[in-house]
Amino acid sequence: MIDRKQLALNKLRGLGDEVLEPLLQEEVPNIKIPSRGTGNIIYNEDKRYFELGERKGTRSLGNVKQIKKMAQMMCVGNFCKELVNIQKTATMREMYYVSEGWDVGFDNQQESNNITEDIEVTLGISREDLGLLPEEDGAAVYGDITLRDEDVEFNALRLGKSGYTIPPTVDDVEIVGHDVDRIICVETMGLYHRLVQEHAYEKFNTLIVGLKGQAARATRRFIRRASDELKVPVYICNDGDPWGFHIAMVIISGSAKLAHVNHDLATPDAKFLGVTASDIINYDLPTDKLKDIDVSRLKELSGDPRYRGKFWQTEIKKMLKLGKKAEQQSFSKYGLEYIVDTYLPNKINAIEGENTL
Amino acid sequence: MIDRKQLALNKLRGLGDEVLEPLLQEEVPNIKIPSRGTGNIIYNEDKRYFELGERKGTRSLGNVKQIKKMAQMMCVGNFCKELVNIQKTATMREMYYVSEGWDVGFDNQQESNNITEDIEVTLGISREDLGLLPEEDGAAVYGDITLRDEDVEFNALRLGKSGYTIPPTVDDVEIVGHDVDRIICVETMGLYHRLVQEHAYEKFNTLIVGLKGQAARATRRFIRRASDELKVPVYICNDGDPWGFHIAMVIISGSAKLAHVNHDLATPDAKFLGVTASDIINYDLPTDKLKDIDVSRLKELSGDPRYRGKFWQTEIKKMLKLGKKAEQQSFSKYGLEYIVDTYLPNKINAIEGENTL
Repeated sequence: MIDRKQLALNKLRGLGDEVLEPLLQEEVPNIKIPSRGTGNIIYNEDKRYFELGERKGTRSLGNVKQIKKMAQMMCVGNFCKELVNIQKTATMREMYYVSEGWDVGFDNQQESNNITEDIEVTLGISREDLGLLPEEDGAAVYGDITLRDEDVEFNALRLGKSGYTIPPTVDDVEIVGHDVDRIICVETMGLYHRLVQEHAYEKFNTLIVGLKGQAARATRRFIRRASDELKVPVYICNDGDPWGFHIAMVIISGSAKLAHVNHDLATPDAKFLGVTASDIINYDLPTDKLKDIDVSRLKELSGDPRYRGKFWQTEIKKMLKLGKKAEQQSFSKYGLEYIVDTYLPNKINAIEGENTL
Repeated sequence: MIDRKQLALNKLRGLGDEVLEPLLQEEVPNIKIPSRGTGNIIYNEDKRYFELGERKGTRSLGNVKQIKKMAQMMCVGNFCKELVNIQKTATMREMYYVSEGWDVGFDNQQESNNITEDIEVTLGISREDLGLLPEEDGAAVYGDITLRDEDVEFNALRLGKSGYTIPPTVDDVEIVGHDVDRIICVETMGLYHRLVQEHAYEKFNTLIVGLKGQAARATRRFIRRASDELKVPVYICNDGDPWGFHIAMVIISGSAKLAHVNHDLATPDAKFLGVTASDIINYDLPTDKLKDIDVSRLKELSGDPRYRGKFWQTEIKKMLKLGKKAEQQSFSKYGLEYIVDTYLPNKINAIEGENTL
């Protein structure tokens, strides 16, 4: 943990030097900033996630139009240096208000967000490492994992029914120990509470992660760290529709928008555990008709490099042909326990080898 | 806790008897259902929250148009009886899917939600007591409160930085002990984390509750129970705009939509701790201009019986005249610590008496 903070400080110092040193030698400072344009967001087939390419732009103090942005970058960098030094954090919104006291301010928060992203891509580290946090907390976690946050140690089986909530400062949390064989993420808190209630954490010896829809940055970072540090398989069980697919895919292969931090956020080995078009047929699930927007989204996904594999191509085609989608909770047709007693064991055994469970 | 379940079972049995007994005597069963129409939602000046009036409708098996709804009520009632008996819960969505296996189903979830509300108002208890839960978890809680959920006991200072998350099953949670003098609720998780980081729980000897915007039912129930059982004042510090006001007011005096359960959810003694129009002026806060929708919402609120008091009438008028609104986080203009070091102590001392803190 200390290493990430030290790294952040070193990189911030480097950025300052890049401007200061030319000035001291009476030269014009220039900063190279990796481009975040779509042309520079590249899917890396080996790493299996989006990352930024080599294209860079130059921001120069010699260009009148760029002076303000350079000054803003220095101010944000300085603010972040303070945060990391005193071991505090601030939300992007707080920084925006703090900037009212700076010599160079921002016209609106979009402007300060952009400058923060400029610094992220230039330094190659995430805003969280710079002490700047998103507003929202991450997922809920239930199961036998022991964590330490500062001087407090706790086990995610013993925090009440809602489990452990991943904080935005997830990299300050140490994974002390665990006794699980796998991690199962689910899209809705409805299914999360079902799995807790049916003791899925014991039956499958698993961590249960309740994503609460689109996974927050902190959730993606936690899943990545849990995958690396626990060295157990990660499964994602979402609704059987393009939105459920994509919530899973952003965890697996990252988003294009965050190409510059996917190396910390993506979990390429995580696997989609359903609901698929095949499940809809095999389990005769209650369905809704695909809407126009579902159809066009499915077509978009089928052309996305992250969905190039045979599994996704087959399932997307099958869903388009079927014209139907189904929710996770639709298994309740067969009783509340069915998803834990039948569906999940079937799926996990199919992936891990028959009779794993 | 056991009492609530027993009460629910008794009431469900009573509902069944109301239909069964006439049938056994070859008479036509009728059920009286309190009206949820706006004309029957009354603000009780003494209790200081919305409740349902005396108006009732009759649902009769003798009316061909009402037979299906009567049957649906019996099916939902029966399902709930099972849930309470086996001490399980289900989401409304799960019940909707489970109903696929019933003799009388629903055309869509709105229909099953309506029938559930019919049962709630008829029995005068909430769906949570019947085992039917909303999807979403409640607020985050940080501070020195010890809770027990089944066989697990824990203190909300020792669960990590995100604190304790209130589960939908909040009435199964026992408050074992506490050492706080007050409860401070805040609208955003940004401010929640600020208060945790600045050790506000020690400085003010307070529970900190992060509402996450509009408070979930579980949050409202928790705040009500904490107010009753801890017997300490409850404060709500929200954004200074009509939306922040109303998030607080729904906690204080309940919503019209849930008039039938406000006796369990409303906390009429809770107090709004800002941001007010007066604060905007006194603290010279960064503001945004009121939008048309803010203005019309403020005018709506000023005519709402919950806002009849002098405090609200003055502040709403002042904000309309000022034409400006401000967020909680705008205090960061004076530094990240200002809200904890200066603003909150000022406000609490003003309410509780000078030099409380």
